[in-house]
Amino acid sequence: MSKASGLALIGSILLLGLSAGVAAQRQETRELPIDGVRLPADYRDWTLISVAQEKGRNNDIRAILGNAVAVRAFREGKRPFPDGAIIVRLAWQHESSPRNDRVFPAPQSFVAGLPTNVQVSVKDSQRYAATGGWGYGQFEDGLPNQDRSLLQSCFACHQKLETIQPDADLVFTGYSR
Amino acid sequence: MSKASGLALIGSILLLGLSAGVAAQRQETRELPIDGVRLPADYRDWTLISVAQEKGRNNDIRAILGNAVAVRAFREGKRPFPDGAIIVRLAWQHESSPRNDRVFPAPQSFVAGLPTNVQVSVKDSQRYAATGGWGYGQFEDGLPNQDRSLLQSCFACHQKLETIQPDADLVFTGYSR
Repeated sequence: MSKASGLALIGSILLLGLSAGVAAQRQETRELPIDGVRLPADYRDWTLISVAQEKGRNNDIRAILGNAVAVRAFREGKRPFPDGAIIVRLAWQHESSPRNDRVFPAPQSFVAGLPTNVQVSVKDSQRYAATGGWGYGQFEDGLPNQDRSLLQSCFACHQKLETIQPDADLVFTGYSR
Repeated sequence: MSKASGLALIGSILLLGLSAGVAAQRQETRELPIDGVRLPADYRDWTLISVAQEKGRNNDIRAILGNAVAVRAFREGKRPFPDGAIIVRLAWQHESSPRNDRVFPAPQSFVAGLPTNVQVSVKDSQRYAATGGWGYGQFEDGLPNQDRSLLQSCFACHQKLETIQPDADLVFTGYSR
């Protein structure tokens, strides 16, 4: 092996080590979201609670899913939600579908585009007592958003609902049968 | 008992029998939809495929769910769908939410109102060979719609998709991760 190719090999090994380190850090970040609210591994298979659309800055179409504890409470109209309830809100860009509009009688079809973010609400009345019993997290591409002010804005907004509908336990969504 | 009250009693019994008969017929109707496409008992717990919005005459917001066979095919991009795949489209009236708009910064929030109907697509390449391998059904309040021309319009519309996107296996919806 020449000196040059030996150095190149050492460089490659160092780069490999560096990138493995970054990947490990990324993995660690993924597993350590603010406030301990994680993205549940199987959330994409959870039961649909309802759907919604937000215009304005969000401009999205969304689905709200729940784990078994949450779904039971929704279906039974049980409030406050019991500890262990987890609600996941998925959202995608709200997009016109020119393909569908070629089939349907008029331009009328809108579909889910690229995913925007996933928001998770976890009910734990002890751990999250300061925020009404709910812990909040937001994930982009599976990774937790580390912006503390963003996460604080979750509770600030849900708290406004409390003044309008005190018996909603800070949850906007109702179950759609 | 007077003759009049005796007759009233007989009348009541007859009416009771009649209404029981109607209920039985209704039950039978529920179980015998056109083309044999039933509303699966547990569809409301199935996995979300995607969401959409139809303006125009429908004016709805909708969710598309799939059974395990369908979900696997969606996730793996497998076309045509294997026999046994079932896709269920739920839809609700697309409604503004004045309550949410009091919380959010601008009038921007739309939610699911009353359910409109549920449409079911069942893949059985033998049984439904004449309609591209798909059997179609529509249900209102859990009961199968018995309008044959309505059900024929399902395939007519899905068939138009075939001319635009032949590899879609007649399915409009894509999986939203």
